[in-house]
Amino acid sequence: MEVLTINNVWMMICTALVFFMHLGFAFLEIGLTRQKNTLNILFKNIFIITIGLLLYCLVGFNLMYPGEFNGFFGFAGFGLDSPLTADGALDLTYNEGYTYWTDFLFQGMFAATAATIVSGAVAERMKIVPFMIFAIIYVGFVYPVAGSWKWGGGFLDELGFYDFAGSTLVHSVGGWAAVVAVCLLGPRIGKFQDGKPQAIPGHNIPLATAGVLILWLGWFGFNGGSVLSADPALTSLTLVTTCLAAAAGGVVCMLVSTAMFKNLDLTMFLNGILGGLVGITAGADQMSPTDAILIGSVAGGLIVFAVSFIDRLKLDDPVGAIAVHLICGIWGTLAVGIFGNLAGMDQFISQLIGVASYAVFCIITSFLIIFTLKKTIGIRVSEKEELEGLDAHEHGMDAYPDFRMNEH
Amino acid sequence: MEVLTINNVWMMICTALVFFMHLGFAFLEIGLTRQKNTLNILFKNIFIITIGLLLYCLVGFNLMYPGEFNGFFGFAGFGLDSPLTADGALDLTYNEGYTYWTDFLFQGMFAATAATIVSGAVAERMKIVPFMIFAIIYVGFVYPVAGSWKWGGGFLDELGFYDFAGSTLVHSVGGWAAVVAVCLLGPRIGKFQDGKPQAIPGHNIPLATAGVLILWLGWFGFNGGSVLSADPALTSLTLVTTCLAAAAGGVVCMLVSTAMFKNLDLTMFLNGILGGLVGITAGADQMSPTDAILIGSVAGGLIVFAVSFIDRLKLDDPVGAIAVHLICGIWGTLAVGIFGNLAGMDQFISQLIGVASYAVFCIITSFLIIFTLKKTIGIRVSEKEELEGLDAHEHGMDAYPDFRMNEH
Amino acid sequence: MEVLTINNVWMMICTALVFFMHLGFAFLEIGLTRQKNTLNILFKNIFIITIGLLLYCLVGFNLMYPGEFNGFFGFAGFGLDSPLTADGALDLTYNEGYTYWTDFLFQGMFAATAATIVSGAVAERMKIVPFMIFAIIYVGFVYPVAGSWKWGGGFLDELGFYDFAGSTLVHSVGGWAAVVAVCLLGPRIGKFQDGKPQAIPGHNIPLATAGVLILWLGWFGFNGGSVLSADPALTSLTLVTTCLAAAAGGVVCMLVSTAMFKNLDLTMFLNGILGGLVGITAGADQMSPTDAILIGSVAGGLIVFAVSFIDRLKLDDPVGAIAVHLICGIWGTLAVGIFGNLAGMDQFISQLIGVASYAVFCIITSFLIIFTLKKTIGIRVSEKEELEGLDAHEHGMDAYPDFRMNEH
Repeated sequence: MEVLTINNVWMMICTALVFFMHLGFAFLEIGLTRQKNTLNILFKNIFIITIGLLLYCLVGFNLMYPGEFNGFFGFAGFGLDSPLTADGALDLTYNEGYTYWTDFLFQGMFAATAATIVSGAVAERMKIVPFMIFAIIYVGFVYPVAGSWKWGGGFLDELGFYDFAGSTLVHSVGGWAAVVAVCLLGPRIGKFQDGKPQAIPGHNIPLATAGVLILWLGWFGFNGGSVLSADPALTSLTLVTTCLAAAAGGVVCMLVSTAMFKNLDLTMFLNGILGGLVGITAGADQMSPTDAILIGSVAGGLIVFAVSFIDRLKLDDPVGAIAVHLICGIWGTLAVGIFGNLAGMDQFISQLIGVASYAVFCIITSFLIIFTLKKTIGIRVSEKEELEGLDAHEHGMDAYPDFRMNEH
Repeated sequence: MEVLTINNVWMMICTALVFFMHLGFAFLEIGLTRQKNTLNILFKNIFIITIGLLLYCLVGFNLMYPGEFNGFFGFAGFGLDSPLTADGALDLTYNEGYTYWTDFLFQGMFAATAATIVSGAVAERMKIVPFMIFAIIYVGFVYPVAGSWKWGGGFLDELGFYDFAGSTLVHSVGGWAAVVAVCLLGPRIGKFQDGKPQAIPGHNIPLATAGVLILWLGWFGFNGGSVLSADPALTSLTLVTTCLAAAAGGVVCMLVSTAMFKNLDLTMFLNGILGGLVGITAGADQMSPTDAILIGSVAGGLIVFAVSFIDRLKLDDPVGAIAVHLICGIWGTLAVGIFGNLAGMDQFISQLIGVASYAVFCIITSFLIIFTLKKTIGIRVSEKEELEGLDAHEHGMDAYPDFRMNEH
Repeated sequence: MEVLTINNVWMMICTALVFFMHLGFAFLEIGLTRQKNTLNILFKNIFIITIGLLLYCLVGFNLMYPGEFNGFFGFAGFGLDSPLTADGALDLTYNEGYTYWTDFLFQGMFAATAATIVSGAVAERMKIVPFMIFAIIYVGFVYPVAGSWKWGGGFLDELGFYDFAGSTLVHSVGGWAAVVAVCLLGPRIGKFQDGKPQAIPGHNIPLATAGVLILWLGWFGFNGGSVLSADPALTSLTLVTTCLAAAAGGVVCMLVSTAMFKNLDLTMFLNGILGGLVGITAGADQMSPTDAILIGSVAGGLIVFAVSFIDRLKLDDPVGAIAVHLICGIWGTLAVGIFGNLAGMDQFISQLIGVASYAVFCIITSFLIIFTLKKTIGIRVSEKEELEGLDAHEHGMDAYPDFRMNEH
């Protein structure tokens, strides 16, 4: 009982921290985009966390953890069904690490994250209603089914694929959909001129910076809670590897980008931190401090090249979501096969299979959803709306009505 | 000893989270008002949390928890008086859930909340000094005496009235004073023109949104800590019901307001979340997930109608405090009689008596305080001050001196 | 095992809270300075937290806690070296209060704080590269060596000097370097005209206010974690004294400054809170609530006079870092000799020796570093850069590109 109580306290705190990441995402996304689309982005973020929790209660939790199932798709029924003792109280033997309620809520907070990643990538040009429909399907169905393959005990779990806290299951799942959405949407007006990418500066760097620090804080819970108990050795190691990878990712990304572009670019510094965090997430419980610094450093370096590469592909990802969540998510997942407890060719191949499975599933499902939306209600705002801002047209409001703005 | 240590850790974390709600309130209130009054609102919020803690130390804690008393008014003496063992150490047998110090601090963080609710309602037109006097009396005396009736073991507790974490004891206590203050103050210049309410848009929607997410986070501690121990079943159920009610409140409020007004109004979405949170607060430890979603949904719907209704009454409540804290506070309190463990006519009547008792006490006391202030030093700033902003006149400073502002 | 798990959970949470203080510092520093230098300040803060953690891993932890050493300087080797059991698992007998990993991370979060204090004092005119070099040396070497004298069991520890959570070891260590840096840098252009100090208002008071509330929240971990276990009596007393000192510091500072300057100055209110927090830090585990209120009140009053005095010395400290961290740090350290468990002339003299030792060491080391930088690469930006802002010149970016700004 005392052990459960301690563990459950830790898991509840981690749940709160993961919840708080939604403020981090919101600040990061609005900070790195233009003020005329601020309210629209906030609306999407608030929609995702609220509808995400409701959907996870209605279907997601039981899709993701269906109990015994075929390894690909299972469903334990609608709604929540808490295990009870003979006299009607909550059955605390459910798990030594947490109660049934904590289990649901912790996992529910994760669910919304995947769709939020997409929100950043499609910012400033996607219509709100199709985005809401996409988010409902992706959070409510795609994410939990994909999650069941590993965390629900499905076929990838049996294959030996390892993803501690979701470099693939959360970040790449969001990242693949971001790629698909960005391809189907096309770039923002003015992003590419004469074939060259143009910088479209974010309007509020203090909030973007705050977003990254809040996300880092949230990662204490995201990774620390993925131990699924308060085990002192594992939780504290996880926090150390998480923080060192974040720090290394940031510093390396800053150094590389400064070496290449001769400025001290805060945005790259911030994205490097996030890349380090995403990179360590798949194996945060298995790495030494040195491993963590290496994994974070590679992630930080990758960010610089990925951002350029994505630009060269003429993909317009306003907040760098694909570089951070997809590229570093893949790197982190593969790193488990290089540095982890069971590192070696076998593990590496398992990791590759996992990465590929999620790629296929997420690309297909997100394509089906977004392509259908494109061909029916349309996914892109009109040119006039885009130029004048989504806040005015989709919401009839202004994020900062008292401030005078520059035209652009 | 270990049980106390775990419980106390949880309670200290919840204390920290409730403290953090003051940033949430501050962001929400400034975000939904005009920039020219920003500093004034922040000053009030900082004043309330600091003076609130000092007063709760001096008199509040011993007014609210007087030990044996007549059920209406008791006072155990000035200052704090920690129970000691024979050898002078803190007596840890005080309570299995927390130490004497934690008890004081957790309750002290609650105390300031009631006055903060009023701060939002009177924003942009109330003089700062009378507000400070009101806050001192309301936080230092009215709130703790009212609290003693239920949480201090007073007459409403004996009557079977139930209010888990303060839908009535905190939110309605603030809400009733907000109604009285708004009536005595009158609307802001320009709020009603030709009898029709005019929208006065808030100046910083990102901070308002952040405020709501911070408040939601804080509610993990507000409700989770009201279990008064780390009991795994109760605390985790409480977090689940809290989050589901918040989510449902937000989504329903957004849908209803969109159906009625044809825009996707972020402010309504945010107030719906807060309404759901206030609504679940009275019975968060007793509800099933379905109950929580229902209670939150009703609260979310209520917000839309309450905001219109308050407008129709020509009451000017800039941040929607009355709809959120009073109307949803009453709803949540009554909902305990409909959905709670002892739901039924008896419980419902107890809840009604509780709601009515606080209404009478809070309306009378806040009227006496504010009316006296109005007739003596005055409560409303001059027209010139109001038009030019309270920041310039009451504080001689500007919240954003580097930014160019629109005139209005 | 259970005791360790509880303690370790508390220490990990406190670690997260201390980490979060870096957002508090960032918001406070940018809020109290001009928008044209915002990005530069954020860059410095992000640099300090990332490089600080990496350096603390590489050398700092083993400089600060070298085990057996001569009391002045010791070094236990590069990198981290976790204690293992015979079968290769983490040795949990390391300490009953936390694991080796938690110990490292909690202390690592402290390390960066000292340099951040300096960042605020040199804002708006110091070149970024020399600041980065200074930060590396100060965080990586000076802070941990200084820390070893007391917390590492060095000569000041044997002498009976007491500093619970770092009024001297963290805040004064930063504060002394701030004094030296400010002297060597000179004031900002326009700060002193005809010998009179001119107010240069901060550009974003909402974020400055948020910064203080986040710092206060972080202090729950800074002081609460300095108990180094979850001991219920000590941790909860510490939180109570911390919060009461903060509240008293704020209220007294606001009252004194209003009495002297006839305005209700929010910035002074905020700095008073911080002064109270810094003041209580040296003895937060030993004070009664009354002591805490007295210590905080004196700190709050000191702030008003210190700010004026520093102005009179023609030192330009844009955010008040010297008054808050150095003056209140010294006061808090001496207060342990007046109010603490062993209060008396002996303790007071020990405290004086401690204060003096850190003064000498920090002034000398920071002078050597900054003077060398001044004579080699230079530490001050050009007049043109300073007038146009460091953001444009050092980073080629703008913190708020969509907003129109006032010229100044």
